Amino acid sequence: MKAVGIIAEYNPFHNGHAYHIQRAKELTGADLAVVVMSGNFVQRGEPAILDKWERTQLAMNSGADLVVELPVFYAVQPGHLFAEGAVKILQALGVEDLVFGSENPTIDFMDLAKKAAEIESQGQFTDRSQTYASAYAGQLEEATGFKLENPNDILAFSYAKAVLKSGLPMNLVPIGRLEAGYHDQTFAEDQTIASASSIRLALHKGKFDKVENVVPAETLAALKDKPNTLDFEKPFYDLLRYRLLTDTVGQLGQVYQMAEGLEHRLAATAGNPEAPQSYQSFIKAVKTKRYTFARIQRTLLYTLLNIKVDQMQAAMADSYIRLLGFNDLGQGYLSEVKRRATLPIISKVDMGLAKANLRLDYKAGQIWQVLAGQQGVKLGQDLSRKPIYQTKETKK
Amino acid sequence: MKAVGIIAEYNPFHNGHAYHIQRAKELTGADLAVVVMSGNFVQRGEPAILDKWERTQLAMNSGADLVVELPVFYAVQPGHLFAEGAVKILQALGVEDLVFGSENPTIDFMDLAKKAAEIESQGQFTDRSQTYASAYAGQLEEATGFKLENPNDILAFSYAKAVLKSGLPMNLVPIGRLEAGYHDQTFAEDQTIASASSIRLALHKGKFDKVENVVPAETLAALKDKPNTLDFEKPFYDLLRYRLLTDTVGQLGQVYQMAEGLEHRLAATAGNPEAPQSYQSFIKAVKTKRYTFARIQRTLLYTLLNIKVDQMQAAMADSYIRLLGFNDLGQGYLSEVKRRATLPIISKVDMGLAKANLRLDYKAGQIWQVLAGQQGVKLGQDLSRKPIYQTKETKK
Repeated sequence: MKAVGIIAEYNPFHNGHAYHIQRAKELTGADLAVVVMSGNFVQRGEPAILDKWERTQLAMNSGADLVVELPVFYAVQPGHLFAEGAVKILQALGVEDLVFGSENPTIDFMDLAKKAAEIESQGQFTDRSQTYASAYAGQLEEATGFKLENPNDILAFSYAKAVLKSGLPMNLVPIGRLEAGYHDQTFAEDQTIASASSIRLALHKGKFDKVENVVPAETLAALKDKPNTLDFEKPFYDLLRYRLLTDTVGQLGQVYQMAEGLEHRLAATAGNPEAPQSYQSFIKAVKTKRYTFARIQRTLLYTLLNIKVDQMQAAMADSYIRLLGFNDLGQGYLSEVKRRATLPIISKVDMGLAKANLRLDYKAGQIWQVLAGQQGVKLGQDLSRKPIYQTKETKK
Repeated sequence: MKAVGIIAEYNPFHNGHAYHIQRAKELTGADLAVVVMSGNFVQRGEPAILDKWERTQLAMNSGADLVVELPVFYAVQPGHLFAEGAVKILQALGVEDLVFGSENPTIDFMDLAKKAAEIESQGQFTDRSQTYASAYAGQLEEATGFKLENPNDILAFSYAKAVLKSGLPMNLVPIGRLEAGYHDQTFAEDQTIASASSIRLALHKGKFDKVENVVPAETLAALKDKPNTLDFEKPFYDLLRYRLLTDTVGQLGQVYQMAEGLEHRLAATAGNPEAPQSYQSFIKAVKTKRYTFARIQRTLLYTLLNIKVDQMQAAMADSYIRLLGFNDLGQGYLSEVKRRATLPIISKVDMGLAKANLRLDYKAGQIWQVLAGQQGVKLGQDLSRKPIYQTKETKK
């Protein structure tokens, strides 16, 4: 069986994602689509607005045949680590085609990655300051004539670099985006495809009817019915501020990516009698030019989850394939590849795993539930949860 | 000037406390009353229902002339350490009389403490299990004929032992309690004195009119007007559970008084999908026969405040006299004794102190504010707060 790979967050799952899955199958002639999806937290350092099971179900309703989790230690990372973790999982599952969105789908991203590697090997990318990203793009443009500036292109470039680094073959297939730009904050009434961020914005404002045209009906129903984190900022900031008030700066200094004395600024800002009143204003208060907003937000999530440097490094060195859902095609594919899979396949989490390899995902799931106001819900995110099995009959 | 010492929590300040202050002055012929009062958390491991400044003001309205804080590292401790910390502060201020409530005010508690010391020196109190307290009381009764069983008597005995241990002279003056028993949970309409716990219970039920006869009008007004922690359990448990979900058991194991693997039971109970829904039921779920309810509650407060063994020990070895309020008499007394005070006198807290000696009180004050829903109130509990100075004119 031939599988095509997709790397996604589905935050939330919308019509553009459904199109992407169909198009990926068509373009590659694949029998099935394998999706590596961020778990309960996304790359920006925010909780996914629906939990990983809801999002798995929605993706499977729209053509995903096998969904596996991108563990939190890869999902909430700078782009290059996010890409490396996801590519590694697809490769471990024997997937040889990767289809991704791009603003410039005619570009050969592998070629671009190779040229970048050449430049890097000549030691030209040495500026690691806050202007690193733009300096890098500038040098790359000089060498290749292509300006790497759009968010999907940048992600595509990360995938190519990750594949190159892996030394394993993988076909990279860019597809052009319909209508919506990645960062678009608004969309028109007649659009059927909109960016995830513009959809989140509309949902956050309570405009459920506005998103009707751009998401599958099941996505809308799930958002209305299920616990979600549309309003995560207040509980997030309450807990974060509590931790910043009670941990010593020594403890905070051990948090992953807490660099250059940032822990002192975080503690001082949280402890100030005139501490910012909202999470957004807190981030603005601690941010410096050196860091992007997303980088700060990720560091604050690591702080909230109390993930230390050594734990993160150990986790990344010990990744796995966590099954979230599959249909008959996905199950058939799993049987075919499981013997040669190069990472352990995990279908059920017991307390032993929750305390060992999976401890960061387990913790992330518990805190997601707290942020979603799900305290006391008997069904946890991990313990005893089986992958969703979707027969033709159970498909909604 | 002759000062009489009082050790108190004033949680909240009621008519019995006012009577105690007046009676203490009368019995000893003192010119003024010096009160050592728990700060923002009380011995049971709970937040005081009004903050330390409110309670200082209320005590001064009813006859206290100088109020100093019993730091959190002594206030939230087993009885013998609570007593040692408080006695040490009174002695550091040159106070030579201590008046306290007792169910048996005719007993010579110093004599009792001396006899207990004799028995202890013979190595007879060796049973350190959960039955230690009653075994101790049993042996003491055998030796002295007096049954140490009432809560005020037990506290009085702790004061006597602390004075004995200090090697410094201090007159111990028990006074009988009016009407209310320490643990009484109810009181009649015609009572003017009721126990603090029965008052808290009535307040917690919202029965403000019921307590009108048993507290000064200012106490009632403060409870109605000011931020308080009458409903602290939900925010306390939310934050505690968050910490138990995110800290490693290794981290939890470093918390003060976390003994015999209790950290594992705490983490497992908090992480259970069927975790208890309230703080009370959580305590019951983790409690064993070996520990008293109060001991568990104190340990959970240390956990909430993230106070580690080494921090607690360092703090106790480095105590101080923190001024909360005084009137002209109190100020006169301070000038008289300040040169021979045997602990540093602190009247104003800057960031330097807040990060050093006073860091536990500073942290406790910040978390008290969080529990009281005071987040964002510009006036903190410590930084830049001056002691309340009550002239005859400002006395309410």
